[in-house]
Amino acid sequence: MFGNIVRKHSFLCVGLDSEIEKIPSFLLKEKDPVFAFNKRIIDATHKYAIAYKPNVAFYECNGTKGWTSLESTVRYIKENYPDLFLIADAKRGDIANTSRMYAKAFLENMPFDAITVAPYMGEDSVTPFLSCKDKWVVLLVLTSNKGADDFQYHNEDGIKLFERVITVSEKWGTINNMMYVIGATRAETLKEIRQIAPDHFLLVPGIGAQGGSLMDVAHYGMNSKCGLIVNSSRGIIFADSTENFDKVAGLKAMEIQLEMEKYLAEHKLI
Amino acid sequence: MFGNIVRKHSFLCVGLDSEIEKIPSFLLKEKDPVFAFNKRIIDATHKYAIAYKPNVAFYECNGTKGWTSLESTVRYIKENYPDLFLIADAKRGDIANTSRMYAKAFLENMPFDAITVAPYMGEDSVTPFLSCKDKWVVLLVLTSNKGADDFQYHNEDGIKLFERVITVSEKWGTINNMMYVIGATRAETLKEIRQIAPDHFLLVPGIGAQGGSLMDVAHYGMNSKCGLIVNSSRGIIFADSTENFDKVAGLKAMEIQLEMEKYLAEHKLI
Repeated sequence: MFGNIVRKHSFLCVGLDSEIEKIPSFLLKEKDPVFAFNKRIIDATHKYAIAYKPNVAFYECNGTKGWTSLESTVRYIKENYPDLFLIADAKRGDIANTSRMYAKAFLENMPFDAITVAPYMGEDSVTPFLSCKDKWVVLLVLTSNKGADDFQYHNEDGIKLFERVITVSEKWGTINNMMYVIGATRAETLKEIRQIAPDHFLLVPGIGAQGGSLMDVAHYGMNSKCGLIVNSSRGIIFADSTENFDKVAGLKAMEIQLEMEKYLAEHKLI
Repeated sequence: MFGNIVRKHSFLCVGLDSEIEKIPSFLLKEKDPVFAFNKRIIDATHKYAIAYKPNVAFYECNGTKGWTSLESTVRYIKENYPDLFLIADAKRGDIANTSRMYAKAFLENMPFDAITVAPYMGEDSVTPFLSCKDKWVVLLVLTSNKGADDFQYHNEDGIKLFERVITVSEKWGTINNMMYVIGATRAETLKEIRQIAPDHFLLVPGIGAQGGSLMDVAHYGMNSKCGLIVNSSRGIIFADSTENFDKVAGLKAMEIQLEMEKYLAEHKLI
């Protein structure tokens, strides 16, 4: 991961939340409009990104057609840009024999490198994903939405639930197969999180449409191997809806990459 | 729900964890072996059940073919046995715009009546499902697996996380669109749960293969409207792998239904 970050001067993940109602309407004449959209977005943005994160919900809502779009998208990336890291944003998690099936779906049958997993059901709901060789779990810790306040701060003897998720799950995986989701809208908490998880990579959604600040995320969250993958979805992929949507997406991705380059240089990582 | 329970003397949900490697091998020659399996299981067990719960993982692991099997299964049930309650065991939950897409996938595009949802991300991850008219959220509270101990008992001022999930979420929905998952392996806790959620329906997995006791569940969990939907998956659907697998499944379902009838009578509900 760090090698790609240094090489591309970027820690950007492009979120493929490719809602069919939001893609440029002229693409609807294509056989697989969502894949056609993704393909052009990927071709235009791959230079500025180290990872892509299709959000599975936006494919499942189109049924079998949606799964075909998802499968085509991840194959296209692996075939054309094999260095890119592929995250299935699926937020799965179930009893062990069921998590095993989700692992098969995303990490074996499809060439994803990682999957987001919800921690509520504990160890045996997460370890089946960690058993997949050279694959990663991206565990929800502190999410970017308002509802994060409902349960994630539940506090036992000074230890908040999201902190416990980190300290307990650190025993299940390693810094080479587990990373944590921390919302960019909670950037101030990154300092505290870096005290208990100094070395783990963090996947940070929530800049752009959700209002998080990249500067704050880099300031509080960057470690000696960067340790950050920052996601932007709608701010890049739906920045424009004309024939030039892909060029504008590329421009938006480049803007973020240039800002990232600055922070990487400030931290003397490039 | 209660009407069907009284009419059928049953509060059984049959879990369609229809793993293709475990279905009788002679079905593999069928065009859609998983659907062929489900169809025969449903025809043989529907008299004894009030609900069916396909576990989405076991379909997703077969990619687009799996989605076709899932869609065919839920349509078959709705067309042939429209009184049955259909639960998508999907354990989804994400930021609001994404949960909205999962709601579309399962509660609009497919004729499911309910979906299981993980609570970790809080209110705005759950309410998009509750916005679907006449549909239900089945929220994870206390699960049947060992990993439930990792986070669900996290205790703030005497209130465990799973209890907080109930008291907080009670404000989001009503007893007519929200139910809770409580593992049968945690039956002794049902008494405590009934103090904070006396009227909600509880979906109880974990009898059979996972070792929970139906007697204990009925003893501690039943309320004046029954208030229980108890799931059995592997103990019914994989009880036999010969040509007669469906008849044996029917027999297993009937055995459970007869035990349920006894508890319903003891509670003077039939």
